[in-house]
Amino acid sequence: MSVPRPNPLLSDRDVDFQLYEVLDTEALCTLPAFQDHSRDTFALLLDSTRRFAREVLAPTYRPMDAAPPVFENGRVRVHPAMRSLYAGMVDLGLLTATRPAEVGGQQLPLTVHAVASAYLMAANLSAYGYLGLTLGAAHLLEVFGTPFLREHFMARLYRGEWTGTMALTEPQAGSSLADVKTRATPAPDGSFRLQGSKIFISGGDQDFTDNVVHLTLARIDGAEGGTRGVSLFAVPARRPEGDTRVPNDVQVAGVIHKIGWRGLPSLVLNFGESNDCHGWLVGQPGRGLACMFQMMNEARIMVGLNGVATAAVAYQESLAYARERPQGRPAGARDTARAQSPIIEHADVRRMLLRQKAIVEGGLALLLTTSTQADLANHAPDEATRKRAHLLLDLLTPIAKTFPAERGFESNALALQIHGGYGYSSEYLPEAWLRDQKLNSIHEGTTGIQGLDLLGRKAVAGGGAALHVLDEEVRATTARARAAGVEPAWSDALEDALQQAASLTLELGARGMAGEVDAMLRHSADFLELFSVVAVAWRWLAQAAAAKDGLSRAALTGAGGSDRAFYEGKLAATQYWFAVEVPRVPLLAHLCRTGEDSYARMHADWF
Amino acid sequence: MSVPRPNPLLSDRDVDFQLYEVLDTEALCTLPAFQDHSRDTFALLLDSTRRFAREVLAPTYRPMDAAPPVFENGRVRVHPAMRSLYAGMVDLGLLTATRPAEVGGQQLPLTVHAVASAYLMAANLSAYGYLGLTLGAAHLLEVFGTPFLREHFMARLYRGEWTGTMALTEPQAGSSLADVKTRATPAPDGSFRLQGSKIFISGGDQDFTDNVVHLTLARIDGAEGGTRGVSLFAVPARRPEGDTRVPNDVQVAGVIHKIGWRGLPSLVLNFGESNDCHGWLVGQPGRGLACMFQMMNEARIMVGLNGVATAAVAYQESLAYARERPQGRPAGARDTARAQSPIIEHADVRRMLLRQKAIVEGGLALLLTTSTQADLANHAPDEATRKRAHLLLDLLTPIAKTFPAERGFESNALALQIHGGYGYSSEYLPEAWLRDQKLNSIHEGTTGIQGLDLLGRKAVAGGGAALHVLDEEVRATTARARAAGVEPAWSDALEDALQQAASLTLELGARGMAGEVDAMLRHSADFLELFSVVAVAWRWLAQAAAAKDGLSRAALTGAGGSDRAFYEGKLAATQYWFAVEVPRVPLLAHLCRTGEDSYARMHADWF
Repeated sequence: MSVPRPNPLLSDRDVDFQLYEVLDTEALCTLPAFQDHSRDTFALLLDSTRRFAREVLAPTYRPMDAAPPVFENGRVRVHPAMRSLYAGMVDLGLLTATRPAEVGGQQLPLTVHAVASAYLMAANLSAYGYLGLTLGAAHLLEVFGTPFLREHFMARLYRGEWTGTMALTEPQAGSSLADVKTRATPAPDGSFRLQGSKIFISGGDQDFTDNVVHLTLARIDGAEGGTRGVSLFAVPARRPEGDTRVPNDVQVAGVIHKIGWRGLPSLVLNFGESNDCHGWLVGQPGRGLACMFQMMNEARIMVGLNGVATAAVAYQESLAYARERPQGRPAGARDTARAQSPIIEHADVRRMLLRQKAIVEGGLALLLTTSTQADLANHAPDEATRKRAHLLLDLLTPIAKTFPAERGFESNALALQIHGGYGYSSEYLPEAWLRDQKLNSIHEGTTGIQGLDLLGRKAVAGGGAALHVLDEEVRATTARARAAGVEPAWSDALEDALQQAASLTLELGARGMAGEVDAMLRHSADFLELFSVVAVAWRWLAQAAAAKDGLSRAALTGAGGSDRAFYEGKLAATQYWFAVEVPRVPLLAHLCRTGEDSYARMHADWF
Repeated sequence: MSVPRPNPLLSDRDVDFQLYEVLDTEALCTLPAFQDHSRDTFALLLDSTRRFAREVLAPTYRPMDAAPPVFENGRVRVHPAMRSLYAGMVDLGLLTATRPAEVGGQQLPLTVHAVASAYLMAANLSAYGYLGLTLGAAHLLEVFGTPFLREHFMARLYRGEWTGTMALTEPQAGSSLADVKTRATPAPDGSFRLQGSKIFISGGDQDFTDNVVHLTLARIDGAEGGTRGVSLFAVPARRPEGDTRVPNDVQVAGVIHKIGWRGLPSLVLNFGESNDCHGWLVGQPGRGLACMFQMMNEARIMVGLNGVATAAVAYQESLAYARERPQGRPAGARDTARAQSPIIEHADVRRMLLRQKAIVEGGLALLLTTSTQADLANHAPDEATRKRAHLLLDLLTPIAKTFPAERGFESNALALQIHGGYGYSSEYLPEAWLRDQKLNSIHEGTTGIQGLDLLGRKAVAGGGAALHVLDEEVRATTARARAAGVEPAWSDALEDALQQAASLTLELGARGMAGEVDAMLRHSADFLELFSVVAVAWRWLAQAAAAKDGLSRAALTGAGGSDRAFYEGKLAATQYWFAVEVPRVPLLAHLCRTGEDSYARMHADWF
């Protein structure tokens, strides 16, 4: 029943605005690492990725959602489209876009890679998933792998010949990786024999490349308990033996029927059922979690982007639907002889659309800012800039991971709601994106864990050093906004909100220092929500400043109405965020500060 | 992978508390209409329904979700279990429980019927759906039908021999019923010939009873446009002809693939393709919507109950899971030699559980209060009481319909989140209940429409007469709470919040009177949210008062710890609501009052 319409996935106009009017992404090319690049080379990647996402990838979304992978005779058969899709994504250069030339990469900024990837995610999240996982695994091997692993495993992953996975979770160890039980026994040849069971292994098997490498957490025989006894191993499904490859005793024990990301299998894997599973140590023994965590910021940025992209494609769909679907007439007009109006004319539909826009574009702005800090943390030539960027990156990451997952889910639900009864059917796509989105609050550290990470580690680290950096950045933004003529009350409100957040952090940190850890962390979910509201307000204010500048230019040059409309929309969305979300900050701070204890004192048998 | 465990669906202890400690449901038996009843006769219905829901109905939920109805050769074949399930529900007496003896009913209060039905809804929402639709159709015929329709249609519906539907929506007329196009042409025999197409007709065909009667909106030839040209008809799938029944030219044109309620088909129906579709007028010509709306309060209460029940069963599941699933250790304890703790020991998990409890039990309290007002509005012997109850019923209905749909969806998402990665799989049930829940914000009037109804009609009607009644009721509750020793700040906060809501309503109403309808209604969604927070706070305060009384009794009698634990949980949930939700009231009121205009001025081309 639904009419397939081209979906832009994300707004190109918005992406360009974010990169070149809000941020100054081209300025990254002044860093030695990016000196070969320019806005033109960025555009090469962006243009080809956009085209591939829209023309090739997006049409495969529905068929892949409808025909999830099949587990038969011990192997997983994925959708047949994946073979050419994967090759196509590899051809775009996305596996190595940010990697140095020595491993075949283009050494582009993460910021550019991130926004290009967002188009692929919006087009077909599952298909992108294989690429993202492979990239993560190869990157780990690049940084921590032995020459053998780099040559035999990493290079094939980066060339797209194999795919990779992260094999962390076990049935009894999900959020609690300290409880990993998989064992690794040293073998005479310097490798290890692994035994254990892993669960929720995304892309844990497929039939479109020759091999899969599992980056696997395990405990070397005799290692201590807890996190410091956990090491990282590369475990291929088929291992090199001389010039050939032989099966490596990694068995697919079952497929989990995920409710979304249905093109990407999630598997139970058994390692070493026949005691013949070879694994190679990656990094130092006992440093497995440390290695993983060194990649964690970028992994979590990618999850944040998944969330933004999934909310974005649904927003675009509901926006197009609202413009074309006639139903009723605006308040006051009851003459049924008059044609029905498109539902975008109803105030409450515009409210839902503007809320989606605020979440989607605010989320994208947050992710690109966070990615830019990652670029600076990795590639700024001077230590001080790197350190400063790292502090901000660490602080922003749990927010950038969580905000799109949680508010994105709400945004996806609004996209469904705008479609009315049609939205409740699988003839239309919003319900599928809503299913996809729900995973983002669970994987790569649940929302609860992000809250603990932000409050228990990132915000209080170094006496609140990251907050000082954020404060400087926010003041630069408010200065720019004031200069551009943006409503000054918004700048005042942002500075005030950040001030509240900072003094709250100090108070809670002091409580933790005094040993009251429970009281400190009790409202970590509200603390994270508070910081999300503030961080997104910051990014909306930056957009408002750029929009004001854009309007001034348009007035000078007599630019077209569509440009002016774009900028006006940005100002309205900023107004929305400051009117609806920022006023929640004192309420959230109050909960954190008073340590409101209803659920703390709620005994398990009181429910 | 999941371990099926008995799910209580709703807490019996809570239901009894709500009926007999918070409300005085037995006092309804002093009304002449209910004089044959007592707590004992209520218990007969409740006990048998609970047992059926748990033992017979609940086990069919997963199979029915997994094997939705099939459309073949023009007919719909539903899950084979439905034949005995429907007969079982009919045997419980639920079709006629509230109806008078003259139509074979027991004349029980709606309050009792509602809470009994909630168990069925929680067990298997789709299976209940057939019953609820039939009840609505039969009730319409009982009130508005001719003797012919009552004898031939209504009686068979009430006896469970046929089922019924509501055939309102058309492809171009969903929320806008004024745009219904289906035509009805008078025939010489006094009946009509219908032609048109209806969509989203739940239960529009099935194969477990002999016939289906569609209560259908259509426009008699020559009728005026708009709502006042719409009439209501009874259109059976097979019509009586002499002693037999013949097909009535109602064709199933397609099945919509709903994402939830998958045991109940949603159909496209074509009436009169061969110009042989007979329908019988129900009520006066042109009064079709008026007839429908006379039943609307009860229909919307039923949707609210759907929402509460669907959130409740998921809450129970996640509570049991949180008590048994070990993962990690509470903050500060990192010794992995120590066994992992059940996740209910983590503060953030308790936060999610308490939020669910606050929504589920607060929602149930709201629905039972609303049902009690319906009982008084229908059956109080004196006109003044009926009128007063009707005002409150009208005011509460859009809230009781929407709160469980919107906050219930959030609650269902939390139940999934508590299950972590397992929650994201269809091996576990939370994802299915989340899908079911989403419909409740769409059908029987979307959330947007409920907001317009509350602000544009119910709150301002008669100069705010309903708010006066609510104010009296709230003051009775705060008086009881203060007397019982409940935290007095909560009573103060509730009175203050209601005062804010009332003065806001007057202000907005005045704006409407001044012709500024747009400005008045712009924040109807926030207005509805504000009233939801207040109404649920009212019902939590009533529960807190009853809990305090319960604790006093327990102290006197030395009652068991489980009773005390139950009451303490009620107090903690009340504290939660007053700490987390009630402080939002001034923010919401501010948005409504200032008429914050970001989305009002957002042009369609600014997005």
